[in-house]
Amino acid sequence: MPRVSQDHLEARRRQILDGSRSCFARFGYEGATVRRLEEATGLSRGAIFHHFKDKESLFLALAEDDAGRMADVVAEQGLVQVMRDLLDERSGTTPGADWLGTRLEVSRRLRTDTDFRQRWAQRSEQLTQATRARLQWQRDSGNLRDDVDVDVLTAYLELVLEGLVSHLAMGLPADDLGPVLDVVEESVRRHRGR
Amino acid sequence: MPRVSQDHLEARRRQILDGSRSCFARFGYEGATVRRLEEATGLSRGAIFHHFKDKESLFLALAEDDAGRMADVVAEQGLVQVMRDLLDERSGTTPGADWLGTRLEVSRRLRTDTDFRQRWAQRSEQLTQATRARLQWQRDSGNLRDDVDVDVLTAYLELVLEGLVSHLAMGLPADDLGPVLDVVEESVRRHRGR
Repeated sequence: MPRVSQDHLEARRRQILDGSRSCFARFGYEGATVRRLEEATGLSRGAIFHHFKDKESLFLALAEDDAGRMADVVAEQGLVQVMRDLLDERSGTTPGADWLGTRLEVSRRLRTDTDFRQRWAQRSEQLTQATRARLQWQRDSGNLRDDVDVDVLTAYLELVLEGLVSHLAMGLPADDLGPVLDVVEESVRRHRGR
Repeated sequence: MPRVSQDHLEARRRQILDGSRSCFARFGYEGATVRRLEEATGLSRGAIFHHFKDKESLFLALAEDDAGRMADVVAEQGLVQVMRDLLDERSGTTPGADWLGTRLEVSRRLRTDTDFRQRWAQRSEQLTQATRARLQWQRDSGNLRDDVDVDVLTAYLELVLEGLVSHLAMGLPADDLGPVLDVVEESVRRHRGR
C-alpha cells in the first residue's frame, strides 16, 4: 500500500477514535447511537464502519487504545500516576487523558457481559505487564520495598485502581482522595517516609 | 404490644431476611421474583409483604442488616477482616457471612439507580463510622501509624474494599489476594513489619 494512503487511513482511524471516545463517555455504550457517533466524529456511518466492523469493534479498539496509553504512562510514571490523572480528570482541574469514560464503560460491561469479559482479558494483561515491569524497574533501582513479591504489589495497585474507578462510577465525592493515593504510593516504596 | 407477639414478629422478620438473602445473591435483584422469594423463605407473598412493604424495602432492610453486621465485625476486628471474610466466602473455604451477594447487588444498583444511591448513602455512613472508630481506637492503643489522618486511612480502607467488591463482581481470580490484604493491613500499622 502506498505510504500516503496508509497515513491517510491511520489519520482517519484516529479521527474516529478521538471523536467517538467522548461520545461513549457521555452517552454510555448503548446511548452512543450511530447518529451520535456520526455527529461526534464528523463522518458518515459508511466511513466509520469502513474502518471498524461494528460498534462493538469500535469500542474495543478505543478501550485497547486507552489501555495502550495507560500502559505508556505506567511505564513512565507508574500506576499511581494513572490514578491521579483519573482524579484530576474527574475534578476538571486538567483537560485529562479522558480515560475515565471508557474505563467506566469497560467496568460496567465486564459485570454484565461474559463475552466482553473474555475479549477484555487479553487487553487488561497489557496494563498488568506494564505495571509489573515498572515495579521491577523500581525494585532494581532500590526504590521499591523488597520484602513483598512484585506480583503481590502489582495486584495491590490494580485492586486500588479498580476501587477508584468503582468509587468514581458511583458518583461518590473524590475531593479527598489525593492523600489516600499518597498512602498507596508510599506503601510500595522502600522506606516509609524515612 | 404483648412481648410474645413482638418476639414472634422479630423471628418472622428474621426468617424472611435470611431466606431472601440467598435468593437475592443467587438471582440478583430483578431475578429474585416474588415466587422465588416465597420458595426461599417458605412463606407466602402475603406474609412476606405484611412485614416489608415491597421488594425494594425488603432488599434495603437486608442491605441495612448486612451493613450492621459488617460494622460489628469492623468494630471487633477491623475492615481488613471484613475483606478477608469476603475472600473466604468467595473461595468457599468457610460458610461465610454471605455478604458478597448483597454487596455486589448494592454495588450494581448504586451505578444504575440514582434514587437508590441516595437511600444508600445513610446506610453506608454506618460502616464508615465503625471503620473510623476502630482506627481511632487502634491509634489510641498505639497500633496505628500516626503520621496520617484517621479520615484518610478510613477512606483508604474503604477504597480497597470497593476495589475488592468490584474485582469479585467481575469474576476475576481472587486466589492470590490474601497477601495483597496483608500489604493493606500493614500499611495502616504503626511500623512496617518491625
